Amino acid sequence: MIDRRINHKDLRDLAAALLSASGTDESEVGTIADILIWADLVGRSTQGIWCLKTLLQRLQAGFIQSPCSPEFTQRTDGVVLVDGHNGFGRYIGYVAMLRAIELARRCGIGLAVVRNSSHFGAAAYYVHLAAQAGMIAFAFTNAPRRVAAHGGLRPIFGTNPIAFGAPLRDGDSVLVDFSTSMVAGSVVRKGLESNEPIREGVAIDQRGLPATSPREIFAMLPFGGARGYCLSLLVEILAGVLTGSLMSFQIPYILEKTQRATRTGHVFLVIDVATLLPLQEYHERMAMLVTAIKDSPLQPGVSEVLIPGEARWRSYLKQIKEGILLDSETIESLESLAAERKIATPWQSTGPE
Amino acid sequence: MIDRRINHKDLRDLAAALLSASGTDESEVGTIADILIWADLVGRSTQGIWCLKTLLQRLQAGFIQSPCSPEFTQRTDGVVLVDGHNGFGRYIGYVAMLRAIELARRCGIGLAVVRNSSHFGAAAYYVHLAAQAGMIAFAFTNAPRRVAAHGGLRPIFGTNPIAFGAPLRDGDSVLVDFSTSMVAGSVVRKGLESNEPIREGVAIDQRGLPATSPREIFAMLPFGGARGYCLSLLVEILAGVLTGSLMSFQIPYILEKTQRATRTGHVFLVIDVATLLPLQEYHERMAMLVTAIKDSPLQPGVSEVLIPGEARWRSYLKQIKEGILLDSETIESLESLAAERKIATPWQSTGPE
Repeated sequence: MIDRRINHKDLRDLAAALLSASGTDESEVGTIADILIWADLVGRSTQGIWCLKTLLQRLQAGFIQSPCSPEFTQRTDGVVLVDGHNGFGRYIGYVAMLRAIELARRCGIGLAVVRNSSHFGAAAYYVHLAAQAGMIAFAFTNAPRRVAAHGGLRPIFGTNPIAFGAPLRDGDSVLVDFSTSMVAGSVVRKGLESNEPIREGVAIDQRGLPATSPREIFAMLPFGGARGYCLSLLVEILAGVLTGSLMSFQIPYILEKTQRATRTGHVFLVIDVATLLPLQEYHERMAMLVTAIKDSPLQPGVSEVLIPGEARWRSYLKQIKEGILLDSETIESLESLAAERKIATPWQSTGPE
Repeated sequence: MIDRRINHKDLRDLAAALLSASGTDESEVGTIADILIWADLVGRSTQGIWCLKTLLQRLQAGFIQSPCSPEFTQRTDGVVLVDGHNGFGRYIGYVAMLRAIELARRCGIGLAVVRNSSHFGAAAYYVHLAAQAGMIAFAFTNAPRRVAAHGGLRPIFGTNPIAFGAPLRDGDSVLVDFSTSMVAGSVVRKGLESNEPIREGVAIDQRGLPATSPREIFAMLPFGGARGYCLSLLVEILAGVLTGSLMSFQIPYILEKTQRATRTGHVFLVIDVATLLPLQEYHERMAMLVTAIKDSPLQPGVSEVLIPGEARWRSYLKQIKEGILLDSETIESLESLAAERKIATPWQSTGPE
């Protein structure tokens, strides 16, 4: 098996067909497929179509509900509570962020607080939705426990990512999106498969000593020491406590095949730029800031200072043009999902070697 | 000269008398004195009464205006723009956060966006105000340029702190408050005075190599590599771009004696917990989370896992009881400020040795 580049539209159609054939409600299929493919396009393949295998398993086991018919309870003009009824996190995240954008357009600021959802994929997708509407936005989510508190041994927090987006004039956006653990959960997952050694400081074993092999990991560590821990806790208070959903330390680990719904919580917070500055003036100010950063002389050995999101948009353009690069493992997994559902893949299957 | 412990009320009165005698408007004196003393009480002496020397210099040079009569422009029900007219940042921050709390009480969420302010001291103070009112809050500020972008050489960002607070049942609050640079600006300032070596990774010299002495520092580095840079930029977009104030890279360095008003920007964002959960339920959920963290077994060599803010509240209780610990340098500076204004200090002056 080898890596392949697949046209993004063909891949999107495959994702939709697989979701559909597995019982995903038609009202949700398109949104979920779009968000999966977007992650692949921007180069975050661990949140891309590779996730379908787990998602479909969980759907068919009844751990994800579809249709989930999210329930909106407007608490004030600017604040909505969304119950996701344990549906697809990507679909719930999408409709919740759209609502937060609507609220911000009306009130200047909008807050959507989501309970009973599941893994929503790349957090950057949601803040980019808001940026495209001329808004600055935050997205937070909790996740199954894997990360220890600073100084603690036991996993308490999920990888609890923080995402932030702001519009740029050319239609791209500033995209900040990182887990508050030293490395993303997907890095450890990949490490488990290949059993490659991991570097010190990323995780600890059951005695609290540095874990050097993925199999020894008892807990991951927050990034940046106490500050990463503070940010993990911040995310947990918003996405775990305030949503009334499960807190990370209560969420069953996502790879346990027998686990129930994760009942994850998300928070989407949106500020309408035009409430404070004419959009034209905002863009002029942003351009000044971006120029100051990009024009900075470089540290030795550095070829360029990147604006957060810039590498994503380069990947996006390249893969729109050249096709999405899939590794052999993903190709194989998609072929097997497609075969089980009697769906053709947009490439000629090589079959098992 | 030796360190001394001074009763917090006496110290507060001294701060008020010094502010007053230097021309601070009476409507602002009490608030500024309270915020300075709070910082000392919680153990953040670099944001405490030690700052008076610089503040009074800047007031008397006309770089800080008093009274500043902050101007509130309500943009929507939940969003207010505050023009601080180059007044004391602590006073402007206080009135802006109070307004954001009011807005959140009415709308569920409140946003105060501040332009033309100055250094507001300990960001934690403002989020604690909100926490006392049963609210979760963020505070952001920019600051004079000192921190390079990730990979860049030139200082672009201020130390751009992020603060977050959430109520706890006993009246304390979770307090997250950190600069997005490797170390706080005050650490470098203190280092400059003592010329102590600094550790690698904190700052770079003009060629981009690690600065080992404070005098070689050309730019400070963001904490946690690219992630700290992302957070610096996030703060800059909110406090610099969106406020319509100066951006960090445009702000004159605060220790230049000839500089004009800093025209700093702040953002205060407040969520009323009761809009989403009954306060009682919120407190139960927070208590579960705090217990899970505190009960965690410990990593080797660690004696306790702390909740962010916990060390602050211990310092607060101790210093309320035993008096605020001032170092000899601060004592000396206060004695000289007091003598110039013919004000008695609440301790017997030792005079120059």
